Amino acid sequence: MAKKSMNKSKFGLAPGTAVFTGIKKTDNLNITVTQYSEKSYEEIVFNTIDDLKNYIKSIDSKKGEKNSLNIWINIDGIHDEKFIEELTLNFNIHKLTIEDILSVGQRAKIEIHSDYIHVVTRVFNFNSIEKNIEDEQLTIIRKDRFIITFQERETDIFNGLKKRIKEGIGTIRKRGSDYLLYAILDSITDHYIVISEQFNDKLDSLETELFENGDNVKLEQLYKVRREVILFKRSISPMREVVNSFEKLDEPIVSNDIKLFIRDLYDHTIMVVDSTDSLRESIYALLDLYMNNISNKTNEIMKVLTIMASIFIPLTFIAGVYGMNFDNMPELHTNYGYFVILAIMVSVLIFMILYFKRKKWIK
Amino acid sequence: MAKKSMNKSKFGLAPGTAVFTGIKKTDNLNITVTQYSEKSYEEIVFNTIDDLKNYIKSIDSKKGEKNSLNIWINIDGIHDEKFIEELTLNFNIHKLTIEDILSVGQRAKIEIHSDYIHVVTRVFNFNSIEKNIEDEQLTIIRKDRFIITFQERETDIFNGLKKRIKEGIGTIRKRGSDYLLYAILDSITDHYIVISEQFNDKLDSLETELFENGDNVKLEQLYKVRREVILFKRSISPMREVVNSFEKLDEPIVSNDIKLFIRDLYDHTIMVVDSTDSLRESIYALLDLYMNNISNKTNEIMKVLTIMASIFIPLTFIAGVYGMNFDNMPELHTNYGYFVILAIMVSVLIFMILYFKRKKWIK
Amino acid sequence: MAKKSMNKSKFGLAPGTAVFTGIKKTDNLNITVTQYSEKSYEEIVFNTIDDLKNYIKSIDSKKGEKNSLNIWINIDGIHDEKFIEELTLNFNIHKLTIEDILSVGQRAKIEIHSDYIHVVTRVFNFNSIEKNIEDEQLTIIRKDRFIITFQERETDIFNGLKKRIKEGIGTIRKRGSDYLLYAILDSITDHYIVISEQFNDKLDSLETELFENGDNVKLEQLYKVRREVILFKRSISPMREVVNSFEKLDEPIVSNDIKLFIRDLYDHTIMVVDSTDSLRESIYALLDLYMNNISNKTNEIMKVLTIMASIFIPLTFIAGVYGMNFDNMPELHTNYGYFVILAIMVSVLIFMILYFKRKKWIK
Amino acid sequence: MAKKSMNKSKFGLAPGTAVFTGIKKTDNLNITVTQYSEKSYEEIVFNTIDDLKNYIKSIDSKKGEKNSLNIWINIDGIHDEKFIEELTLNFNIHKLTIEDILSVGQRAKIEIHSDYIHVVTRVFNFNSIEKNIEDEQLTIIRKDRFIITFQERETDIFNGLKKRIKEGIGTIRKRGSDYLLYAILDSITDHYIVISEQFNDKLDSLETELFENGDNVKLEQLYKVRREVILFKRSISPMREVVNSFEKLDEPIVSNDIKLFIRDLYDHTIMVVDSTDSLRESIYALLDLYMNNISNKTNEIMKVLTIMASIFIPLTFIAGVYGMNFDNMPELHTNYGYFVILAIMVSVLIFMILYFKRKKWIK
Amino acid sequence: MAKKSMNKSKFGLAPGTAVFTGIKKTDNLNITVTQYSEKSYEEIVFNTIDDLKNYIKSIDSKKGEKNSLNIWINIDGIHDEKFIEELTLNFNIHKLTIEDILSVGQRAKIEIHSDYIHVVTRVFNFNSIEKNIEDEQLTIIRKDRFIITFQERETDIFNGLKKRIKEGIGTIRKRGSDYLLYAILDSITDHYIVISEQFNDKLDSLETELFENGDNVKLEQLYKVRREVILFKRSISPMREVVNSFEKLDEPIVSNDIKLFIRDLYDHTIMVVDSTDSLRESIYALLDLYMNNISNKTNEIMKVLTIMASIFIPLTFIAGVYGMNFDNMPELHTNYGYFVILAIMVSVLIFMILYFKRKKWIK
Repeated sequence: MAKKSMNKSKFGLAPGTAVFTGIKKTDNLNITVTQYSEKSYEEIVFNTIDDLKNYIKSIDSKKGEKNSLNIWINIDGIHDEKFIEELTLNFNIHKLTIEDILSVGQRAKIEIHSDYIHVVTRVFNFNSIEKNIEDEQLTIIRKDRFIITFQERETDIFNGLKKRIKEGIGTIRKRGSDYLLYAILDSITDHYIVISEQFNDKLDSLETELFENGDNVKLEQLYKVRREVILFKRSISPMREVVNSFEKLDEPIVSNDIKLFIRDLYDHTIMVVDSTDSLRESIYALLDLYMNNISNKTNEIMKVLTIMASIFIPLTFIAGVYGMNFDNMPELHTNYGYFVILAIMVSVLIFMILYFKRKKWIK
Repeated sequence: MAKKSMNKSKFGLAPGTAVFTGIKKTDNLNITVTQYSEKSYEEIVFNTIDDLKNYIKSIDSKKGEKNSLNIWINIDGIHDEKFIEELTLNFNIHKLTIEDILSVGQRAKIEIHSDYIHVVTRVFNFNSIEKNIEDEQLTIIRKDRFIITFQERETDIFNGLKKRIKEGIGTIRKRGSDYLLYAILDSITDHYIVISEQFNDKLDSLETELFENGDNVKLEQLYKVRREVILFKRSISPMREVVNSFEKLDEPIVSNDIKLFIRDLYDHTIMVVDSTDSLRESIYALLDLYMNNISNKTNEIMKVLTIMASIFIPLTFIAGVYGMNFDNMPELHTNYGYFVILAIMVSVLIFMILYFKRKKWIK
Repeated sequence: MAKKSMNKSKFGLAPGTAVFTGIKKTDNLNITVTQYSEKSYEEIVFNTIDDLKNYIKSIDSKKGEKNSLNIWINIDGIHDEKFIEELTLNFNIHKLTIEDILSVGQRAKIEIHSDYIHVVTRVFNFNSIEKNIEDEQLTIIRKDRFIITFQERETDIFNGLKKRIKEGIGTIRKRGSDYLLYAILDSITDHYIVISEQFNDKLDSLETELFENGDNVKLEQLYKVRREVILFKRSISPMREVVNSFEKLDEPIVSNDIKLFIRDLYDHTIMVVDSTDSLRESIYALLDLYMNNISNKTNEIMKVLTIMASIFIPLTFIAGVYGMNFDNMPELHTNYGYFVILAIMVSVLIFMILYFKRKKWIK
Repeated sequence: MAKKSMNKSKFGLAPGTAVFTGIKKTDNLNITVTQYSEKSYEEIVFNTIDDLKNYIKSIDSKKGEKNSLNIWINIDGIHDEKFIEELTLNFNIHKLTIEDILSVGQRAKIEIHSDYIHVVTRVFNFNSIEKNIEDEQLTIIRKDRFIITFQERETDIFNGLKKRIKEGIGTIRKRGSDYLLYAILDSITDHYIVISEQFNDKLDSLETELFENGDNVKLEQLYKVRREVILFKRSISPMREVVNSFEKLDEPIVSNDIKLFIRDLYDHTIMVVDSTDSLRESIYALLDLYMNNISNKTNEIMKVLTIMASIFIPLTFIAGVYGMNFDNMPELHTNYGYFVILAIMVSVLIFMILYFKRKKWIK
Repeated sequence: MAKKSMNKSKFGLAPGTAVFTGIKKTDNLNITVTQYSEKSYEEIVFNTIDDLKNYIKSIDSKKGEKNSLNIWINIDGIHDEKFIEELTLNFNIHKLTIEDILSVGQRAKIEIHSDYIHVVTRVFNFNSIEKNIEDEQLTIIRKDRFIITFQERETDIFNGLKKRIKEGIGTIRKRGSDYLLYAILDSITDHYIVISEQFNDKLDSLETELFENGDNVKLEQLYKVRREVILFKRSISPMREVVNSFEKLDEPIVSNDIKLFIRDLYDHTIMVVDSTDSLRESIYALLDLYMNNISNKTNEIMKVLTIMASIFIPLTFIAGVYGMNFDNMPELHTNYGYFVILAIMVSVLIFMILYFKRKKWIK
C-alpha cells in the first residue's frame, strides 16, 4: 500500500522530467470547467486539450469584461503525460511543478511561486476491490482567477463544494479564487474527518466483536486497520504545515477577510491529526486487550486440562493397580475390597475437587 | 465515544453554516441570566428568545446607569439552531463562531475577535446509563459586560461559581466580566481535577482487586478506563494553550490585577495534564502487572499438571505391564511380586516428589 | 498515592480561599525560628502565634541595629488555616499564595512577587506504616531578611542545614537570606538524590532476587516501585524550571556571587532527573527480564511434561493392548511374547530419549 | 553490520591523520573524469595519479578558454591512502577533510570551507554474498568547476546521471558545478527511495507469508530487516540537515535558480525519512501480529489437547475400573453390565462434546 | 552500578565542602607532569605534593623564557582530599570546582570561570573482577599553559595521546594548551567509540548464539548489556553540550584555527550518541526475537505433547475397554475380534496422523 506511493521508474531521470509514476487508475480523462461569478454559473465539459486551450484563450481575450470570473478546471486522470504538460505550459508552470503533479507519491506541501501557488495534498478512497483504503494525490494550482485541480481518478470529494457553487450557498460566489482554494482544502480536510470516523467505527466494531467472542476477531483486520492508520497519519500530518503556510500568505495573494476561515481550517487539521493519534493509541489498547484475552483463554483451557488430568490420572492408576494379574494379591480376594477401593476413589475425587475449589480454579 | 466528537453531517456544507452536529442530549432549553454588580444580584430565567432579546435591549438602553453590571447568560441545550443563531446575531457574532458553537466536536481554543472573545472548552459528564464518561462542549463568549455560555445540557459545573456570585464570596462581585471569564475557566479546570481523581480512584480499586484475586479483574474495565483517559487527555491538553493565550491578553481586555489569577489557573492546567500523563503510565504499569500475573498463573497451573502427570503416568504404566495377560510372565507367580512392585511404585513416587522439590516446583 | 495530591474539597470554592486541602499528618504545630548573623546564632521555639507576632514586631523595630540578621521561620504542620493566614498576612502575602501554601497538591514552582519570592517544592518521606514513599509539599517564602518554610509535618530534611548554620560551617553565616534560600533548595535536591539511590537499591535487590530464584520475586514490589518512580518523576521534574528561574533573578534579589552555587544546584537537579529516567528504563529492563524468565520457566515445565507423557503414554498403550481379554490373541500364548514386548517397550523408551536428546530437550 | 561503520584502528591517532579505516572492498582503483560544457562532453579514464595530475594541470593552464567546463572526477576505491592524499593536496584540501574521506564510518554532513564544499553521504549496496544491505560512504568535494566523488567501490548509483550528462538530457550541460553537486545528491536520495521500497517489498512478502502459513515465516528474516532499517534510518536522517544547509548557501557558491531544485530535493529527503518511520511502525505491527499469531496457535493446540484428554481420560478410567480383578465385583456378572457401561461411556462422550461446544472450543 | 554514581555521604554538607564521595579505587597516587614545547619534551613523575608545588613555582618564575611551554599535570587517584585541595588552591580554583572534582558522580559539563576552564567528563573502564563496565569521572582544568587532569585511577586512555606528544606526531607540539584540551576530549570521545563497538560485538555474539541454539542464550547477559547501555547513554549524552560549548568559546581562550578540530570532535560526539541509540534499538530487537523464539519453542513442545497424547490416549481407551472383565462381552469370544480391534486402532492412528498433517503440525 505504502509501496505504491513511491515508484522506481523515476530513478535516474533528470529532475523536472514529466513522467507519470503511478498506476493508471482510470481510462477516462475528464476535463470539467466550473466558471462562476456572483451572478453567473456555468459547468463545461471538454473532450480534448484543444477545446480547453481555445476556451482558456477566449477567457484571456475577454479579460476586461469578465474580470470577476473564477475558473476552476478539474482534471480527473493524470496518466496522460503529454496532456498535463501541454495544459500546464499554457499557464507557465515550472517544470518541477509539472513533475510533482505526475509523481503520485508526493508529500503534502505548498509552494509559493512568483505568479502561482502549488499545493500538493493527499486524499483517501476506499478501494472496493481490494477492500482497503488507498491514498491518492490531489494537486491544486492557483494562478490569478484560475484554480486547476489534478486528481488520479474521478472522486466525489468535490460534490458538496460544486453544489454550493452551483446553488450559490454561502458566500463562495461573491469571493475570489483564494476563497475557492480555501474551500477546496476545507473539503479535503472534512474528508479526512470522515475517514478518521470510519476508522473509529471499524475499531468500535472490532472492539464489540472482541468483547463478545474473543477468538473470532480476525487479527488480520486489526492489523490492516493499523497499517492504514500508519499511512493515514503519515499522509495528513504535513497538511498542518500546508494550511499554516497558506494562512501566512499576505494581502495581494490571499485577502484578509479569508484569514479567519483559514485559521478555522487550521484548527480542523490539528483536530484530525490529534484524532489520528488517539486512533493509534486506541489500536494499541485494543491489541493489548486482545493479547490479554488470548492469555486468559489459554489460562482457562489449561485449567480444564489440569483439573481433568489431575483428577482422573491418579484414579486410573488405582484402577490399574487392581487390574494387575499377580497370583498373590490379597485385597482382590476380600469380600468388600472392590467397594473399599471405590470409596477410596470417590475420596480422592472429592479431595481433588476441594483442592481446586480452594485454588479458585473451580467456581 | 471519541466517534461522537466528529460528525459526518457537516461534510460538504459551506463553512459558517449553522448546523447542530451533535446528538440532542436534552429536550429542555434553559436560559438563565445572572446579573450582578458589587451591590446587586439577580437571577432571571427566560422561556423564550423574545423575552431574552427584550431584556438585552433594556440593558443596552440603560447603559449609563448600569455600567458596572455584569451579565452572564447561560444556555443549556444547543440543539435549537434557530435560537442560537438569533441570539448570537444579536451580539454581532461572526458566523464561523456560530458554526463552532453548534459543532460539538471542537478542540479547546481561544479566539480573539475585534470586539469579543470566543473560548471553546470541553467538559466531562458521567453518563449514568452507558456507565461511561462523555465529553461535551462548552462555549464561552465574552463581549463587554456580557458572558454567554453554551452547554450541550444542564450540568452542575457552575453551581459553586453561582453560589459565590449570589453570596458575594470572594471578590467576584467587585470585578468585571474578565474575572467572570477567568472564574468560569477555573471552574472547568477544577472539574478536570475532580475527573482525574475519579480515574485515579478507579485505577486504585482495580489495582486492589488485582492484588486480591488476580483473574477476577474485569479486563474490559481497565480497557474502558484506558480509552476514557485517551479521550480525556486529548480534550484537556489544548486547555493549556487556551489559558496561556488568555494570560497574554493586554489591559483593555483583561485587567492586570487578574493576571495573577490566570497564572495560577495556568499552573492548574499544567498540573492536570501532568497528572493525566501519570494516569497513562499507571495504566501501563497495571496492564504489565496484569499480564505478568496471568503468566504466573499459567505457570502455576502447568506445574500442577506436570507434577500430577509425571508422577502417575509412569506408575500407571507399571501397573499396565502387570495387567498384561501373557501366559508366561514369571513375576506374576512369585509370592511377593505384588509387594515388590508396590514398593517400586512407592520408590518412583518418592523419587519424583524429591525431583520436583529440588526443582522448587513443590514447596 | 497520587490521589492524595489533589483534593475534591476545593471544587467550587473561590480562588484565593484559604482552605487546607490535605490530610492532617501531625497533631503538633512546631514554630521554630533560627536567627543568625555572622557572629550571632539563636534558635527560638514559639508556642503561640502571638509570641511569634510579638517577636516579628520586635525584629522590625530593631531594624537598624540588626540589619545583617537573617531570620528563618520554620512551620511544621499546615492544617491550622487560621494560623497560616494570620502569620502570612503579617508579611503582606497575597491570598493566592496563602491558598497555595494550604493546597498540598501543588506542582513545584517559583513565583516572583513585587516584594517576596514564593517557592513551592515537593519532598519525599518514607511512611513506615504503609511502607511506601509519600510526597509532601514544602513551601518557601522569602521576604527581605525573612525565610519562612511550611512543611506538612516535622521532617529531618533540614537537620544538616541547621547544624551548618549553628556551627558556622561554610560561608552561610556570612551571607544573606538569598543564600539561605539557595541552601534550602540544595538540601531538598540532595534529598532527592538520596531517594533516587534508595530506589536504585530496591531495584538492585529485586534484580538479585530475580537472578537467584526467579519466581519468588514479588511482582507487586516491582509494581509498587514503578508507581512510586512515576510519582517521583512527576514531582521532581518541575524543580529544574524552578532552579533555572531562580538562577535568572537579578542583583537586588539574588546577589551575583551566589549565581555559581545556583548553577551548581541546577546541574544537580538535571542529574537527578536524568537518573530518574534511567530508573524508569531499568524498571522496564527488569520487567522484560521477569517476563522472559516466566516464559522460560513455562517452557521448562512444558518440556518435563511433554517428555514424561510422550514416553509413557505409548508404553502404557502397548501394555493396555496385551491386557485385553480376547480369547484369540496368539501372542499371549507364545513362550517369549512377554519378553519380546518388554524389549519393544525398552526400544521405544530409548528411541524417545534419543529423539528428545537430538531436540536438545534433554541435556 | 553497524559495527563496520566504526573502526578501532583510529583510536590513539592524531586528528587529521590520513588512515583508511574501512575494509578494502575492491582491488581496483578506478579514476573516471567526466568533463562537459554545454557543447562538449568527454569521459576519460586514468590509470595513474600522475596522469590525473597532468590532466588537472593542463586544465588549470587553459583556464581562460575552458571557463565553462565542469570537471567531475570520480574515484572508486579509497583504500589507497597515499593516492587520496596526493590527489586532495592538489586541491588544497584540509587534512581533517582528507581524514574524513578515509574514515568510512562518518555521519552524513556538509562542511563549508573557505574555498571548497565537503559533503559526506552514505549510500547503500546489496551485498550478494552475505545477503544483506551494507552502507558505504560517499564523499563529495566541490571546488570551483571541480566535483570530486570518492566511493568505497564501484557502484551503479551514478549511471543515470552520467547518461543524462552524456546525452544532454535536461539542463545539466547548461549549468555549473553547483547543479552537478545538486544532481549527485538527488541521485543518492533517489537511491534511498529505491532502498526504502525494497524494504517495503520485503515486509509485504513477509506479511503475505505470515497470513498464509503463520509459523513458517522465518522470524530471523524479520529481525534482519529490522536491524537493517535501524541502520538505514540512522544513516539517512542526517541527510535532511545536509540538504537544508546546502539550500541556505548564498549566491556566489550556489546560484539562485538552483534553489528550487534543492528545495525539491529537501522535500524528497523528508519524504524518505517519513517513509522509514512508517517502515519501523510497520515492522512493529508485523511483530505484534506474529506474536499474536503464535499465541493463537498455542491456544488452538492447547484446545485440541484439552479436548482429547478431557474426553478420553475419564473414559479410560471407567474402563480401568472394570478391568480390576476383584473377586467380588457384582456388576461384572450381570448380563447387560457391559452394555450399560458402554452406554455410560457414550453419554460421557456426548456430554463432554456438548460442554466444549458450549464453550465454543469445538465449532 | 548506577548507584555508585551518587553517594549519600554528601547529604547535609555545606556546598563547596571538599569531600571525596567515591569508592577508593587505587592505593597509589600518581603525579605525572608532561611538559613540552615545539622543541622540548619532558615527562616527570613526582612523589609528593611538595615536589610538585616547587616545580610549579619554578615554572612560574621562569615565565618569560618558557612562555611557549605547555604543562600537563595528570593525577591518578583522587581519594586524598587534602592533596587535591592543596594542589588546586595553588591555581586559585573555586571551592565548588574542587567539590566537583571530588564528587565522582557528576554529569559531564563545561564551566567557564574567569581565569580557568573546568570540564567534567565520564570515562569507562572494564572491571575485570565484576566483569562489567564501570564509569568513572575524569576532570580537566585548563588554566593558561596548564592542563590538570584528575582520574579516579590509572587508565590507558591517554597512552596514544602521550605517545603523540612524545614523538611529536601531528601538530600538537606546535600548539597551545587549548589544542591539548581538545586532544584530551578527542581521546575520550574516541574511547567512547571503542566502548560502543564492544557493546556491538557483545550484541552480535549474543545474536549469533540466539540463532544457533535459542534457549542457551543467557538472558542475564542481555539484561546486563542493556543496563550498561542505559548507563553509557546517560553518561555520554551531555558530552555533546560540553563540546558544543567548547566550540563557542572565543579567541583569547580558544584560538580560531582549532575551531575546525572541535567541530570535527562535535560530529564524533553526535555519531557516538546516534550509535548508542541504535544500540538500544538493537537490544529491543534482540529481546523481541528472544521472546518470540521462546514462544515458538513452547509452541513446538506443545505440538509434540498434543500429537502424542491425542494419538495414544484414545487408543489406550480402546485397549482399556477390551481389558474389562465383564462376563458377557460377546466381542471377546469372536475368532477375529482381536484383529478387528487392532485394525481399528491402526485406522485411528492413521486418521490422527492425517489430521495433524492437514493442520501442518506434522511436516
